[in-house]
Amino acid sequence: MQNVTEDNITDTFLNYFGKDTDPRVLEIMSSLARHLHDFARETRITHAEWQQGLEFLRATGRITTPKRDEFVLLSDVLGLSSLVDMMHSPAVGTSSSVLGPFHVSNPPAHDLGSDLRGEFDGEVVLVKGRILDVDNKPVSGATIDIWQTAPNGMYSSQDPDQDDLNFHAKFTTDKDGNYSFTTVKPVPYTVPTDGPVGDILKATGRHPWRPSHLHYIVEAEGFRSLVTEVFPSDDEYLNHDTVFGVRDDLIMHYLPQPAGSFPEAGFELSGSVKEPWLLVEFDIVLVAASSI
Amino acid sequence: MQNVTEDNITDTFLNYFGKDTDPRVLEIMSSLARHLHDFARETRITHAEWQQGLEFLRATGRITTPKRDEFVLLSDVLGLSSLVDMMHSPAVGTSSSVLGPFHVSNPPAHDLGSDLRGEFDGEVVLVKGRILDVDNKPVSGATIDIWQTAPNGMYSSQDPDQDDLNFHAKFTTDKDGNYSFTTVKPVPYTVPTDGPVGDILKATGRHPWRPSHLHYIVEAEGFRSLVTEVFPSDDEYLNHDTVFGVRDDLIMHYLPQPAGSFPEAGFELSGSVKEPWLLVEFDIVLVAASSI
Repeated sequence: MQNVTEDNITDTFLNYFGKDTDPRVLEIMSSLARHLHDFARETRITHAEWQQGLEFLRATGRITTPKRDEFVLLSDVLGLSSLVDMMHSPAVGTSSSVLGPFHVSNPPAHDLGSDLRGEFDGEVVLVKGRILDVDNKPVSGATIDIWQTAPNGMYSSQDPDQDDLNFHAKFTTDKDGNYSFTTVKPVPYTVPTDGPVGDILKATGRHPWRPSHLHYIVEAEGFRSLVTEVFPSDDEYLNHDTVFGVRDDLIMHYLPQPAGSFPEAGFELSGSVKEPWLLVEFDIVLVAASSI
Repeated sequence: MQNVTEDNITDTFLNYFGKDTDPRVLEIMSSLARHLHDFARETRITHAEWQQGLEFLRATGRITTPKRDEFVLLSDVLGLSSLVDMMHSPAVGTSSSVLGPFHVSNPPAHDLGSDLRGEFDGEVVLVKGRILDVDNKPVSGATIDIWQTAPNGMYSSQDPDQDDLNFHAKFTTDKDGNYSFTTVKPVPYTVPTDGPVGDILKATGRHPWRPSHLHYIVEAEGFRSLVTEVFPSDDEYLNHDTVFGVRDDLIMHYLPQPAGSFPEAGFELSGSVKEPWLLVEFDIVLVAASSI
């Protein structure tokens, strides 16, 4: 194999593996090399383009910090993050979707019916629903970790003017699997565009927007943890989320409610909402851990 | 396309391109996404493996400096660098091979017949040959930039004990296209193994060795520049260069010469070599720039 050629280099690579290579490592590295070589052969990548690709990776490395991971963003806009997510999403139950970079560990526990709006004004959105198992039975004691953008389009971790825990909260379902809270509408926002991944978006004529969403992590004993996002049906970016997170079963609806109809009890805002408000009802179905 | 699935995400990605996208960018990014998605689907990459891949890229970024480029090394050991090189190597003329990281710009000009051994001892190797065009006509005034490892296995830029320009030299061919110099045998050496790319080599049971070689850049007016490497026929790593650089037409032979036979004139060492020595004859064929 001394004369390596364009046509035999992939086989040469595959012949280099040691006999004791872990079978999964061998599978992954073989597939990676085959696709990498096929990509290069298919596009006839030039030296200059190869150099450009290397500089892209170096620049991605330079901008990456523990707080900003440009490699994850690259994976996101190339659809890889969503693909990995979908491949391991259970066939039954509510779809999972990408975690994203804005989750905060250990958000404050809130009572059911609490309000998340903090210092922000805006139309009240009442979100309620049930956590269910695949047989439609309620899951009590499930924890629901919720986070979303503020009305200014920023997550608290991006915004020096917001408290770090703004719009981050954890709820526990009651005996009937219910959860509920009030908030304001999350808004669409852009992924960071000031790095090399932003350059890819610009070069390919893509916008950097994600549709607005409520982010959920739902956990309950005996069930598979669910990381997901729920998107309003009227969001202008619903059909072209730049990170490919939208699934049919993750759509919620804002149902307009008339002035004076806000529940009189059971909510932190009960008694103080005189204006029209919006209702969202969204149930989530968990899959038993044993079914994986 | 709101319901992105494992099966339609690649098409979704391809539909995101703006209409004004440069055709070459579109071609490269489409092929990249198709292969990346196929790789993920084929191997059913898990979240944990995806995280491991991201951490590999972050670690590769962290160890990369202007003096050590782990991304290039990754491309080298995956065979991509050689593949790009081979795809753009001319069909006629001497094959090109990888540049590698050890070239020094503007090496010192030496007269033909000069000695490169510096302070190093070792059997004298006399290297000579001609630079030719594809019609076998000599190319006079061609510049030949040569570099190699010292007998200790290190390039001068890796070795604090060596002068930076050790074993780096530039020659100009005479009117008959001849070049010649004396040196010592280059030796096999390992690519760096203390970074993430080294971890890949270990995990796949691969050695990090490159066969010994003389590195050449040959340039002449009217000809395509040639970056190449020439490997001795008896090197133990000739059939498994870890960066896939060996080509059939890049093999040189050390021809043993008896004591007392060293040329009496024309070499810096003429008159001082009493021991047996080695002769290497290696011609290089350049391709006209206009033929590309």
